[in-house]
Amino acid sequence: MERKKYSIGIDYGTQSGRALLVEVATGKEVASAVVSYADGVIDEQLPGTNSKLEFDWALQNPENYLDVLRQGVPEILKASQVDPEDVIGLGIDFTACTMLPVAKDGRALCQIPEYIHNPHAWVKLWKHHAAQDEANCLNKIAASRNEAFLARYGGKISSEWLIPKIWQILNEAPEIYEAADSFMEATDWVTMQMTGRDIRNSCTAGYKAIWHKQDGYPSKEFFQALDPRLENLVEEKLNSPIVPIGSKAGELTPVMAKQMGLKIGTAIAVGNVDAHAAVPATGVVTAGKMVMSMGTSICHLLLGEEEKTVDGMCGVVEDGIIAGYFGYEAGQSAVGDIFEWFEESCVPSNYVEEAKARGINIHKCLEEKAAKLLPGESGLLALDWWNGNRSVLVDTHLTGVLLGATLLTKPEEIYRALIEATAFGTNMIVETFTNAGVRIDELYACGGLSQKNNMLMQIYADVTGREIHIARSLQTPALGAAMFGAVAAGEKGGGYDTILDAAAKMTSIKQTYRPIPENVARYEKLYAEYKILHDYFGRGANDVMKRLKEIKRNTRNYNA
Amino acid sequence: MERKKYSIGIDYGTQSGRALLVEVATGKEVASAVVSYADGVIDEQLPGTNSKLEFDWALQNPENYLDVLRQGVPEILKASQVDPEDVIGLGIDFTACTMLPVAKDGRALCQIPEYIHNPHAWVKLWKHHAAQDEANCLNKIAASRNEAFLARYGGKISSEWLIPKIWQILNEAPEIYEAADSFMEATDWVTMQMTGRDIRNSCTAGYKAIWHKQDGYPSKEFFQALDPRLENLVEEKLNSPIVPIGSKAGELTPVMAKQMGLKIGTAIAVGNVDAHAAVPATGVVTAGKMVMSMGTSICHLLLGEEEKTVDGMCGVVEDGIIAGYFGYEAGQSAVGDIFEWFEESCVPSNYVEEAKARGINIHKCLEEKAAKLLPGESGLLALDWWNGNRSVLVDTHLTGVLLGATLLTKPEEIYRALIEATAFGTNMIVETFTNAGVRIDELYACGGLSQKNNMLMQIYADVTGREIHIARSLQTPALGAAMFGAVAAGEKGGGYDTILDAAAKMTSIKQTYRPIPENVARYEKLYAEYKILHDYFGRGANDVMKRLKEIKRNTRNYNA
Repeated sequence: MERKKYSIGIDYGTQSGRALLVEVATGKEVASAVVSYADGVIDEQLPGTNSKLEFDWALQNPENYLDVLRQGVPEILKASQVDPEDVIGLGIDFTACTMLPVAKDGRALCQIPEYIHNPHAWVKLWKHHAAQDEANCLNKIAASRNEAFLARYGGKISSEWLIPKIWQILNEAPEIYEAADSFMEATDWVTMQMTGRDIRNSCTAGYKAIWHKQDGYPSKEFFQALDPRLENLVEEKLNSPIVPIGSKAGELTPVMAKQMGLKIGTAIAVGNVDAHAAVPATGVVTAGKMVMSMGTSICHLLLGEEEKTVDGMCGVVEDGIIAGYFGYEAGQSAVGDIFEWFEESCVPSNYVEEAKARGINIHKCLEEKAAKLLPGESGLLALDWWNGNRSVLVDTHLTGVLLGATLLTKPEEIYRALIEATAFGTNMIVETFTNAGVRIDELYACGGLSQKNNMLMQIYADVTGREIHIARSLQTPALGAAMFGAVAAGEKGGGYDTILDAAAKMTSIKQTYRPIPENVARYEKLYAEYKILHDYFGRGANDVMKRLKEIKRNTRNYNA
Repeated sequence: MERKKYSIGIDYGTQSGRALLVEVATGKEVASAVVSYADGVIDEQLPGTNSKLEFDWALQNPENYLDVLRQGVPEILKASQVDPEDVIGLGIDFTACTMLPVAKDGRALCQIPEYIHNPHAWVKLWKHHAAQDEANCLNKIAASRNEAFLARYGGKISSEWLIPKIWQILNEAPEIYEAADSFMEATDWVTMQMTGRDIRNSCTAGYKAIWHKQDGYPSKEFFQALDPRLENLVEEKLNSPIVPIGSKAGELTPVMAKQMGLKIGTAIAVGNVDAHAAVPATGVVTAGKMVMSMGTSICHLLLGEEEKTVDGMCGVVEDGIIAGYFGYEAGQSAVGDIFEWFEESCVPSNYVEEAKARGINIHKCLEEKAAKLLPGESGLLALDWWNGNRSVLVDTHLTGVLLGATLLTKPEEIYRALIEATAFGTNMIVETFTNAGVRIDELYACGGLSQKNNMLMQIYADVTGREIHIARSLQTPALGAAMFGAVAAGEKGGGYDTILDAAAKMTSIKQTYRPIPENVARYEKLYAEYKILHDYFGRGANDVMKRLKEIKRNTRNYNA
């Protein structure tokens, strides 16, 4: 019998990186290791310096990413006793847009002593929000020029994305902009550290850097209109090859092979993004299936056969998720976060005591009580905008609503109404896609929320009227990255030639929620009411939420 | 020096009666005693019988009312060592409409063995809600006949009022209807027990029995249209003299004088209603001043010089509060009740623990935190309809709304938003009166909520932009009743000839809240937003609240 082959997936999160060793033939997860970033999220002071950061900054130390390779990979090899000779490939996925300025020799600028004290030389994490002015200005100029790319991003480029972040560097630290040979996504930079080759992936290029497979980056004229100094940004600092997700980026260099304890020449996949890597790990590699990556927020990913304009989506990118398909992304900016807020801020002490007395956690206690309610029985309806609305309204200034409260309203009724509201938010996204001609036959779910919450998942099935299949894996991003590692190796190298083949062997569904017809009928009525409120508060009929935020802002300024 | 004179006020609440002994010259409250009703609120089973009641019934035993006279009055005399010779008058106030069928000899029908097993022979308490069908039917017929009286009651007769309650008796127990020589408000019946004379007061007649000083009761034709058997209701069963509030009803009979320990012939005022009796006790006896009786709900009472039609008020009655004025009544159906709901259902356990550790109650803890916020600082806005809207929308099917929630929203912010919402509700009432030409120069407040909550009262002053004067007395209904007792005695009898004189001597203001100009300006903006939502949800643009209640009802039926 031939020896088992393995692939490694490395999932770079916000606080740590996770290395996962997977059996290529079956997808069995053999060993995993989590390495916390020594410097975590840098939002107060640069490590080893006195440089203070402003409040909406969020940086990271790229050295921490390499530590995940150097510590995590040997750890899983040791734990599993797998021979490095049998590790055929490796893929990574990352938060995005997490970007950095890079020197000609491939080092991050912040790794060069000359620049270490300049915060703009460090990695800007996805949630670095200090480029909002640049984003606002970019959106204004793009709209006034009728730039076609806007429609691909729901009409708005986020301050979290690459071009605003680069522009902030130019505005605030032109010497860093000048010194940078290139700006890279961290996922591409880490991949380059392993292979020695600067190959960019189509996913972050498409979703975060306004790149399009046919049209490329925005025009020179557009960049010139932003700032004359940006005119040649693409040729000068973004001019590396961009290849589809699923491609091989290169092979492990001798230096890194030694540090990681792997064999020289191990196949390395091009970099990827966490939620996007989770799609094939959920078993979805063809059109008509929407994957919900469910946690503090929900990321909705869908494959389509054509490029359509869909109202308020986050982006559509050819080869963005699976090569050969248009990858659509949409999202809800707070889901699990809302329930956590509720559990921390709104659950009365007698419920906490009851849970304690029964030896269950408060979440379980609320779920039990809420599960006894029928749809509509509480008389409550909520709008799930506790952290604004990402899709389909693309408006961070919207806020949460609870309607229908009476003196008899109970905590579990509010809890259930909040869950239902997030399900209505997902249904609004599903409906918007299907109305735009992008079909959705089935839903798939992965991520923490989909694994632990039966009632929630049943509500999502009932509200959307669709079956929802739950991924077996608890770490779909890392599994997906490992699958792409196996594809980078190819069938000849002991892996697979396509991600379809990999998905067929390496993934499975652990459970399916099926809509209950009576509940579907009841939720149709409630969703109709949600839609009326959604449009009334979200589409300009009553901008009370924005005016309240403005009043709030003025109050604080006045007070300061 | 002449001996001090005293008057007694007796306040009949829902669970107990309170007797208060007051110094006539100064209003000083000398002694008080609370007597609980032995049978309390009868809502499950008739005392001494096996007769079960349906769920929306609420009865009382009239014998319990007499016990308050027999026990409470001797108790305050004993405690104060006041000589009964020096007690010059007595007045009572009551919940309303609290009504009963009365035999020709003045006994309640339920005091006669023949009728004791029939629940319709007992007192129907104000919150007996089993006459809703009759009320709905009455309103429909009144509207179709364009009955002028509807406008005096905000367009709707409540199921709690006299005519629906009488009609329920006729429908369900015609033998009781037949046996009743008369139907009386409990306040008039208890007064009659003391004086031996059947004299009705203009307050309950006007606010609860559709009586008008000029037009009298509704017409024979109207009653005939309701039910041919009701055609002669007024002549046959409501045909007693009705006199203005402030009149003398009669003098204490020898039998009752003996039972109560008072002197024979003590002056007895005509019966009154609790919130209405509180008005002169707050010092208000002229036009332009609105009294807010603030507790679980708010009752707004206002004197005017003319009869105006005001949108959605509860009633306007000539001589209804103070003789010579038109008494206007409006209300908010839940105020303190909302805060209690919040404290019980929505305050997280770490707040409860903090309050405990600091040795303060949770209410105090929330108030402290909420008081640190500026108007508008939370970004929240609420609609105070947790128990429907009494004025100005007169709609029990409306429900509460909280808007503006984010992941950073704190419990004290919600708490303050709820308080502000009730203040906006009061301001809507103030505005509706003034827009209708009934002027309001100042606000006065009495009742528990006005005594304990500095922040709340300041918010009310800031939202309404008006000074609010707080009554000194903690038991304004009983004090008001005692004041009317002193007026019944007259100046010659050691009291006062008018309630104006009594108010000048017997009441005072303990504190005044003055609007803070910056806050007034801020609340104007928030109130403008409240008004938009109030009209959107309350005046038919989006009847989502009613549809949710309908869905809720159907769900329960389906489930049952």
